[in-house]
Amino acid sequence: MALLDESASGVFVIGVTPFTDDGALDLDSTDRVVDFYLERGATGLTVLGMMGEAPKLTAEESRIFVRRVLARVGGRVPVVVGVSAPGFAPMRELAETVMDDGAAGVMVAPPASLRTDDQIYNYYEMVAETLGAATPFVLQDFPLATGVQIAPSVIQRIVKAIPSCVMLKHEDWPGLAKIAALRAASDRGEMRRISILVGNGGVLLPEELSRGADGAMTGFAYPEMMVDVWRAHAAGDIERAHDLFDAYLPLARYEQQPGLGLAIRKYVLARRGAIASATLRKPGGKLSQADIADIERLIARQERRLSELG
Amino acid sequence: MALLDESASGVFVIGVTPFTDDGALDLDSTDRVVDFYLERGATGLTVLGMMGEAPKLTAEESRIFVRRVLARVGGRVPVVVGVSAPGFAPMRELAETVMDDGAAGVMVAPPASLRTDDQIYNYYEMVAETLGAATPFVLQDFPLATGVQIAPSVIQRIVKAIPSCVMLKHEDWPGLAKIAALRAASDRGEMRRISILVGNGGVLLPEELSRGADGAMTGFAYPEMMVDVWRAHAAGDIERAHDLFDAYLPLARYEQQPGLGLAIRKYVLARRGAIASATLRKPGGKLSQADIADIERLIARQERRLSELG
Amino acid sequence: MALLDESASGVFVIGVTPFTDDGALDLDSTDRVVDFYLERGATGLTVLGMMGEAPKLTAEESRIFVRRVLARVGGRVPVVVGVSAPGFAPMRELAETVMDDGAAGVMVAPPASLRTDDQIYNYYEMVAETLGAATPFVLQDFPLATGVQIAPSVIQRIVKAIPSCVMLKHEDWPGLAKIAALRAASDRGEMRRISILVGNGGVLLPEELSRGADGAMTGFAYPEMMVDVWRAHAAGDIERAHDLFDAYLPLARYEQQPGLGLAIRKYVLARRGAIASATLRKPGGKLSQADIADIERLIARQERRLSELG
Amino acid sequence: MALLDESASGVFVIGVTPFTDDGALDLDSTDRVVDFYLERGATGLTVLGMMGEAPKLTAEESRIFVRRVLARVGGRVPVVVGVSAPGFAPMRELAETVMDDGAAGVMVAPPASLRTDDQIYNYYEMVAETLGAATPFVLQDFPLATGVQIAPSVIQRIVKAIPSCVMLKHEDWPGLAKIAALRAASDRGEMRRISILVGNGGVLLPEELSRGADGAMTGFAYPEMMVDVWRAHAAGDIERAHDLFDAYLPLARYEQQPGLGLAIRKYVLARRGAIASATLRKPGGKLSQADIADIERLIARQERRLSELG
Repeated sequence: MALLDESASGVFVIGVTPFTDDGALDLDSTDRVVDFYLERGATGLTVLGMMGEAPKLTAEESRIFVRRVLARVGGRVPVVVGVSAPGFAPMRELAETVMDDGAAGVMVAPPASLRTDDQIYNYYEMVAETLGAATPFVLQDFPLATGVQIAPSVIQRIVKAIPSCVMLKHEDWPGLAKIAALRAASDRGEMRRISILVGNGGVLLPEELSRGADGAMTGFAYPEMMVDVWRAHAAGDIERAHDLFDAYLPLARYEQQPGLGLAIRKYVLARRGAIASATLRKPGGKLSQADIADIERLIARQERRLSELG
Repeated sequence: MALLDESASGVFVIGVTPFTDDGALDLDSTDRVVDFYLERGATGLTVLGMMGEAPKLTAEESRIFVRRVLARVGGRVPVVVGVSAPGFAPMRELAETVMDDGAAGVMVAPPASLRTDDQIYNYYEMVAETLGAATPFVLQDFPLATGVQIAPSVIQRIVKAIPSCVMLKHEDWPGLAKIAALRAASDRGEMRRISILVGNGGVLLPEELSRGADGAMTGFAYPEMMVDVWRAHAAGDIERAHDLFDAYLPLARYEQQPGLGLAIRKYVLARRGAIASATLRKPGGKLSQADIADIERLIARQERRLSELG
Repeated sequence: MALLDESASGVFVIGVTPFTDDGALDLDSTDRVVDFYLERGATGLTVLGMMGEAPKLTAEESRIFVRRVLARVGGRVPVVVGVSAPGFAPMRELAETVMDDGAAGVMVAPPASLRTDDQIYNYYEMVAETLGAATPFVLQDFPLATGVQIAPSVIQRIVKAIPSCVMLKHEDWPGLAKIAALRAASDRGEMRRISILVGNGGVLLPEELSRGADGAMTGFAYPEMMVDVWRAHAAGDIERAHDLFDAYLPLARYEQQPGLGLAIRKYVLARRGAIASATLRKPGGKLSQADIADIERLIARQERRLSELG
Repeated sequence: MALLDESASGVFVIGVTPFTDDGALDLDSTDRVVDFYLERGATGLTVLGMMGEAPKLTAEESRIFVRRVLARVGGRVPVVVGVSAPGFAPMRELAETVMDDGAAGVMVAPPASLRTDDQIYNYYEMVAETLGAATPFVLQDFPLATGVQIAPSVIQRIVKAIPSCVMLKHEDWPGLAKIAALRAASDRGEMRRISILVGNGGVLLPEELSRGADGAMTGFAYPEMMVDVWRAHAAGDIERAHDLFDAYLPLARYEQQPGLGLAIRKYVLARRGAIASATLRKPGGKLSQADIADIERLIARQERRLSELG
C-alpha cells in the first residue's frame, strides 16, 4: 500500500467503529460502512480517531478492527489510523502493528498538558522519533477537544524539522486565518507544502477550501456532501459548492453538537443502512425521541432541498 | 419601568457597544443601534454582556453607556444589564446604579472557578443576597465561555430557593435536553416556570423553541431572523420557521466563530448602517480581506435566498 | 490473597515503575523496590498509579510488571492496581487480569471531562458495573491532576450506593475539611465508614491524621517517614509525629514539585539502592546539577536532624 | 517617589486588604499592617494582588485603599499596585491613578485565555502601550492561578522589547529551572538583567535564592522569615538560611493551601495585632475550629524551634 504523503486531497472520512446492540465489535458492519464511505466518494479513511470511540476499545480490539478495515479497503484508498496515546510505548506498539498491516499513515493529537510553543514542538519531535522516519503522520490540531493551541509558526517549525509530518488535520476554531497563514508560508518557500484537511464536521468547508485546504477529514453522516462540495470547488464552481453545502448545513450543524454528535451520526448511518446498530459504548450520548424527531425533520427538509437543487 | 419577570419572551438582542474609529465610546451610534434593534422587532435588549465588550469599559464608561441606552429605549422594551464581576462589591455597585437608572433586571454568569453543584448553588445565593430581593436577575449558563457546567437539577434548586431568579439565558451546548428537562420539571410542578431565552448566536433556535424556549437572547447581526423565526414558530408554522432560519444559517454559522464573531457582527452592523464604525477595543479579533469577502458572499446569497422565500 | 476492605490503614506506598538506563522494564529492580518498601513498614502497595508512569507502559508490559510485583509481595500486604482508563473495555480487561493474578483491589480516577455531581456519580456507577461486585475499588480524588472536583456529598452518595467502593485516596487540596466532613457523616450513621488514605506526597499528613485519615497512599522516597508519623499518631504522641514529620518536610516539599517530583523520587530511590537506575520514560522531568545539589543538601540536613531527634 | 527598576531586591510583602468584621474597608488597620510589614524588614509592598482581594473592591475603594497605603508608607519603600484587568481601559485608569498618587510601579498577570507564545508576547506589548513608557511594570507569572504557562524564551522576548518591564514576579511551579534559565540568558548578554522576586508563599525560597532570585514577593504571615532567609543567604550563610526557613516551613506549608490560605494568613495577622479583624469578603475561605487548632499548634512549635535556633 502506498504511504500517505503531502499530495493527499479530497475527503478522508473519519470512520465510526460499529458495535452490535450489546456493545460487541460488529465486523460485518465494519465491512458495510467501509463500502458505504467508498461508494460515496471518500478518497481516504481515518479510523480510531476521537470520534471513532478508539479509547473504548481494548488493544486487541483495536488491532482486529483496523485489520478488518484494511482488508476491506484492499488498498483502494489510503487508511490513516489514530494512535494518540498518553505514553510513547503504547503509541509505538499500535503504530508498528497497523503500518505492518498496511495503513498509509498514523495521526497524533497533542496531550492536554502541553502549553508553550516549545513544549508542543518537543512533543512532536518525540512522536517522530517514536514512529520512525518511515511512518508518515498527521498532526491533529483540535483545540476544542485537546485544549492545546498550536500557533501557525509552531506547525511551520514541525513541518520544517520533521519530514514525516505530511498532513495537518485542521480543526481549530476559528481557523480560517491559520490555513491562509500556512499556505502563505509555503508560497514564500518557508515551509514544505503539506496536505491540509479540515474537520469540525465540515461546517466551514467552502470557506476553508477557498483559503487553501485540500479537502476534509471529518465524519459527517453524509460524506457525499463533502465530496460534492470539494469537487464543485475544485471545478471552480464556488456558488454550486455553496448551494450543495447549504442544503446539508442544517443537519451538519445539528450533528456538530459536542458529545451528542456521534450518537446523531450513528443514528443516521444506521438509518442509511451503513451499520446495523446505532449503539455507542459507554460513556456515550443517547438520543431522545425529540432528538430523533429533529433529525427526521432535518433529513426530510434536506432531501427536498437537494431535489430542488438537482 | 416594569421589572423583568418570568413571562419575558421573544428576542432580547445582546447589544454591541459602539466605539468610534479611535476606540472612544460612540454615543450617537448607541442611539442608532438601539433604534435598529427595536425596529427589527426586539422585545428586549441586553447590554454589557460578554459580547458587549463590557470588561473593556471603565466603570464610568459603563454607567454612561447604560444610561444612554436606557434613555433611548425610553421604556419601550425591558433592558437587562450584565453585572458579572469577580467580586460582589463591584457587582452590587453596578447593579444598584443601573436599576436606579431604569434597567429591568441584571444578568450574572458564574466565575470560572466553580465546579461542584453546591459551589454553584451557593454562589447564586450570594448573588441574590448581593442584588437584593427587588432586583430580578438572569442566570447566564454559558459553559463554552465560563467552563462551568450547571446541571438542570442545580438550576431547579436555584429557581426554587431564589424568587428573584426569573430567567435563564441558555447557552449550553449541547443543550436541547436541558431545556426539555427544565420544562418537564415545571410541568410536574417541581419548579416555577421561568423564562428561557437561548444564545449561541441562535444556531439551534428552531429546535430550542420546540423544546420549550421562550425566545432568544443573543446578538446575531440580523435580529429579524430570530424575531421572524420566533413569530412563525409561535404561530405554529414550524416549516416556515425552518425556511427562514435556513436562509440565515450560513451567515449565522460564520458569525459563530469564537473570538472572531464579534468583529463579524460589528462589520455587518456597520454595513447595515446601525453603527458608524466596526471598531473593537483591544484585545479583539480583526477581519482580513478574505474574511470580508466571505461575509459579502454570504450576505449576497442570503438576500437571494430570502427573496426566493418571499 | 485477601481483598481490600474498609479497614485498610497505614501506608500504601505508591510504587515507582523501575526502568533500566535505556528505558526497558527493570524486573530485578522491581523485586528490590518491593522489598525496600516492605522493609520500611509499608502496609500495602499501589502500582500503576499516576506517579507510576502507567500510561507509558504497553498493555503487555503492565501485565508483566504487576505480575512481578504480586509474586514478590507474595501476599504479605495487599496490592492495589491503578486501572484508570478513558474507556471501560480496557479498564475491565486490566482489572480482570490483575485481580486474577492476586491484586487486592483496583483504583480509578475520574476522567477530566466530568463536571457536575451527577456526571461524577454516574461515572462511578459505570465503573462499579464494569469491575463487577467482587472487585473492591479505591476512588482516587486528585483535583490538581484531573481537574475534577468531587464534593463530599458525592463521595457519600457513591459510598452508599456502591458497596465495592471501600477506600478514598484523598488528594484534594485544600482537603482537611473534606476528611472531617466524611468522618462526621459516618459518625452520624449517614454513610459506611470507608478507609481514607491521603496523598499529595504526605505534606499535610499530621493534620490529615488528626481529621480522621487512616494513613497515607503516596510515594515519598522516605516511606519510613509516613510509617513513623502514622505510628506515633496512632500511639497518641502527636508532638512526636510532628517532630518526625518536620525533619522530613524540607525534602518532601521539594519532591512535591509537579512534573519534576517523580524524577526527584527516583533519584533518591536509586541513591538509597532501591532501584538500579533513576531513568524515567519520556516525556519525563530531568534533574539538573543544581537540582541534585539541592537534594543532596536536603538529605544531609535531614539526616542531621533525624539524628538529633533520636 | 522613586520608580521601580531592575535593581529591586529583598522582600516585597503582598499586603492584605483589611476589612472590619462587617466587611467594610478598615483604614486604621491599613495603617497598622503597613507599619507591621515595614517593621519586619519589608523592602517594598505590593497591594491589590490576587491575595489582596482586589477584585472584591469597587473602583472607588481600590483608589481609597491604595492612597492610604501610599500615604502611610510615605516613600520609605516602593509600592507596587496590581492592575490586572480583563480590559485595557480599566487597567489604564487604575494605573494612571495610582502612579499619580505615588506608586513605584504596577503588576500585570496574563488573562486565562492566552495560550501560544505569540499571544502572550502580544498581550504584554498591549499592556506596555496601555501603561505608557513611564510606568514600570512587573510581569506576574503564576500558572497555577492563571492557567497561562510562559516559557523563559517568551519572558526574554518581552524583556528585550519592552524597557518598562523591570521585574518578574516568579510563581511558576516547578520554577527553579526558569530562574536559572533567565539568569543564564542575562549572563550571556542575551537579555537585560531584571529583578526576580519569588512567590508561592516562599515555600521554595532558599533554593530559589540559590538559582538567582533577588528575593521574594509574597505574603506569608511571618514576613520576617523571608527577610531573615534573604539576609542570611545574601551574607553567604546558606545553612543558616535553611535553618531559619525550616523553622517556619510547617506553617508556611499550611498557609499554602489554595483558597484557604488567605483566611489562615489573616487569622495569623490578626493574632499578631497587625489587623483588627480576620474577615474576608465573600466569597472567601473560612477557618474551622480544627483549622485554628492546627495553626495554634504550628505557631507554638515554630516559636519553640526559633528559640532553640537563637
